[in-house]
Amino acid sequence: MTENPTDPHVHDLLEFLRFPSVSTQSNHASDLVACANWLRTKFFKIGLEASVLETGGHPAVLARTPHDPSKRTVLIYGHYDVQPPEPLDEWKSPPFEPEIRDGRIFARGSTDNKGQILAHILGLGEILARGEIPPVNVTFLVEGEEETGSANLEAFLESHREELACDVIVISDTGMAAHGFPTLTYALRGIAALEFKLTGPSQDLHSGVFGGAITNPATALARLIATLHDADGRVAVPGFYDLVQPLADWEREAAAALPITEEQLRQLTGVRALAGEPGYSAVERLGARPTVEVNGLGGGYQGEGTKTVLPREAFAKLTMRLVPAQDPATVLQQVSDHLRDHCPDTVDLHLTAGHCGEAYFMDPNQPDGLAARRALEKVFGRSPALMREGGSIPIVTTFKKVLGADSLLLALASPDCCAHSPNENFPLENFHAGIRLHQAVLEELGREGRGEGAATDRAKTERPGFQNR
Amino acid sequence: MTENPTDPHVHDLLEFLRFPSVSTQSNHASDLVACANWLRTKFFKIGLEASVLETGGHPAVLARTPHDPSKRTVLIYGHYDVQPPEPLDEWKSPPFEPEIRDGRIFARGSTDNKGQILAHILGLGEILARGEIPPVNVTFLVEGEEETGSANLEAFLESHREELACDVIVISDTGMAAHGFPTLTYALRGIAALEFKLTGPSQDLHSGVFGGAITNPATALARLIATLHDADGRVAVPGFYDLVQPLADWEREAAAALPITEEQLRQLTGVRALAGEPGYSAVERLGARPTVEVNGLGGGYQGEGTKTVLPREAFAKLTMRLVPAQDPATVLQQVSDHLRDHCPDTVDLHLTAGHCGEAYFMDPNQPDGLAARRALEKVFGRSPALMREGGSIPIVTTFKKVLGADSLLLALASPDCCAHSPNENFPLENFHAGIRLHQAVLEELGREGRGEGAATDRAKTERPGFQNR
Repeated sequence: MTENPTDPHVHDLLEFLRFPSVSTQSNHASDLVACANWLRTKFFKIGLEASVLETGGHPAVLARTPHDPSKRTVLIYGHYDVQPPEPLDEWKSPPFEPEIRDGRIFARGSTDNKGQILAHILGLGEILARGEIPPVNVTFLVEGEEETGSANLEAFLESHREELACDVIVISDTGMAAHGFPTLTYALRGIAALEFKLTGPSQDLHSGVFGGAITNPATALARLIATLHDADGRVAVPGFYDLVQPLADWEREAAAALPITEEQLRQLTGVRALAGEPGYSAVERLGARPTVEVNGLGGGYQGEGTKTVLPREAFAKLTMRLVPAQDPATVLQQVSDHLRDHCPDTVDLHLTAGHCGEAYFMDPNQPDGLAARRALEKVFGRSPALMREGGSIPIVTTFKKVLGADSLLLALASPDCCAHSPNENFPLENFHAGIRLHQAVLEELGREGRGEGAATDRAKTERPGFQNR
Repeated sequence: MTENPTDPHVHDLLEFLRFPSVSTQSNHASDLVACANWLRTKFFKIGLEASVLETGGHPAVLARTPHDPSKRTVLIYGHYDVQPPEPLDEWKSPPFEPEIRDGRIFARGSTDNKGQILAHILGLGEILARGEIPPVNVTFLVEGEEETGSANLEAFLESHREELACDVIVISDTGMAAHGFPTLTYALRGIAALEFKLTGPSQDLHSGVFGGAITNPATALARLIATLHDADGRVAVPGFYDLVQPLADWEREAAAALPITEEQLRQLTGVRALAGEPGYSAVERLGARPTVEVNGLGGGYQGEGTKTVLPREAFAKLTMRLVPAQDPATVLQQVSDHLRDHCPDTVDLHLTAGHCGEAYFMDPNQPDGLAARRALEKVFGRSPALMREGGSIPIVTTFKKVLGADSLLLALASPDCCAHSPNENFPLENFHAGIRLHQAVLEELGREGRGEGAATDRAKTERPGFQNR
């Protein structure tokens, strides 16, 4: 473990983090291209063929070892795009000038996902530098639109289906149950984004002169948001829970066994007390129950002091987090209908649907799941936790659909890595563990597939004794 | 009527409007001083003594004719500070580069209040330029903190009580019932401002990773705002209406007689339909009923696209508009208590009280009210409307308290002047009418006071035959 930025691996990560590759902000388009080109060069240097490929949006980077048809093929997926860094004034060091403090590297994207994907790249680089041939064929796909919902990637997978054919996919873009605690994430929530705006008067009005005789769009917005949940915190949108399955007993046991206490969660988030849907533990609410969250809202005067306006419009940005069997398009329709039903007819409602992604579920007792668990145990020295993750990686369901392969979600992020938040950071310890984990998981997946031939569809394999969901 | 900016009166107004004298934004402090100095010079030029005086905040400008103790004294009040111009991109011409289009002068402050107070100054200037002696003593007080609630003016009045002694006050800072329709405003709503913020997690969190297990401050804010009104639009804060008096019959008749239809109001505001408290006409809701309005709210991500954060805080800026007998401090307490009572204990509520001002009421059938009505009829050629105004001029109640004088509110603003909004404008026709109105009202007030000596407290005079409230 070193904190020395002259360590060549750390040096590589510092370089990677300096690109402000913010995919949601159109002014950063050229930064994404520059970052993709840097990645291609990195792949070249470790000895892979690599290309930067058009997707219709921000480019994707594809790299491959020479493929031996007698071996299984593992696809490693990651993304080089990052969340916006705002609010900037809450960062202790600038988000795109990475700084190492207390064994952690602080920068936007350090955890999500540059640090994690680079660990895999450097892990393979070490194998090749030793002159070894990896036990499986390896393909890397590093995209630039994960944070905007990977809108162009499904078409990209379709058009590169042959180059991307694989037996199993490995992704490190999830969180560990606790710092240093190896974790296999076997489920992800899906997402459906919806922005809405209410417009009323043709312009901002004097709230003294006109207040009382017209509907205030900001007040109406608040009242509309307030209809989305009941007093207990359950989502109040009709039909929202219709397809949500109850949790299996083994899942509730796995959730209860996670090394995460409610007090730890409270301290981690900094809230006065936890809250949420009755009948579920906090861990279950986070991973296994769907939500409607306000990501942002605004309207009227936001500056210093008072401005006595009656705003002409107000907006809110919502995301729904979904669990298996919930269809994002249906949920968008349900929430849109609910907003329309509750919107007063004195203002106009404007709805803009955003990106969608289905939830994901992969049985951790499948052979490849067991292989991943062995690799995690080897690197971290203890049996991994089995966890459902609250975040979304929409691409995982797309991989399943287009490539027919399941994804092994091997967490390298610690719970306090502040992904999507100011002061995002990645422990160098996790970075180095990720490099070793890459090598261990290739070894175990190679062993698992030995003698079975390549490209077996593992998802269809059921073995006696395993509890499949 | 001229649109020629070389008209010296219009030229003066253009100069006055170029000062960005925004009192609510601290970076404009020096612009307010420059604007006050310009006014002092203007008073000098028309032949008055004038001074720029410290108030503890932005300075006030005081100017007087030579005072004859045998004459009544009229105080003309106005303000040279303006509302913030934001949102800037909605202005057709820059807010501090006045432009004349279609007989109207467009600039922030053109109506509120620079155009109106300057009309009075120039009206007196014309009298003096003709070598005449005005029929009353005239004192001008033009302050720089009206838009922030005139926090320092009460102390200023106390310390300049002698220089400001007067029989009656004339203020043009209200709206005409219709364009070209002379209007005496006999009541103003009061105001109480309150900002509140909810804080939850210690920083913005990933809404996938943490959504569902903690209270979202933006959602909680919306739910809290939604408790402020009932489903019909009445304010739901306990005690809010306790001291509100029912409207007298003559007032409901005066309101019904105003040349303002609901369809006109709807078109003026641009809303799909009017709304508000049941049991009252729109005109009554605007002038005679109290409100709670959201002037601004915000929280979380407001930029382009989606950012999946769970915001650490959210805020709302409220103003309550009050009617006679409602005490602003009591209302602030009621609303604060209501918010505390409804705030979930999983977030922290931070309350910041803003400026306050009591409502005002002056019987329009008092002798000075009748004098003002004669002056309005003379200038505009028709009998004036009697109106309650929804806006607030807190200083009016302070004048009554400290100087013992009532205020005659002689409207010069047309309903579509867009005070406080983008594209604020002032018809040159109103500007020139204001210059004539100043001369007519001095004449009528001088006639009214003839033979009665100076500084009679008119507010205490009751005459048989007039309906006093």
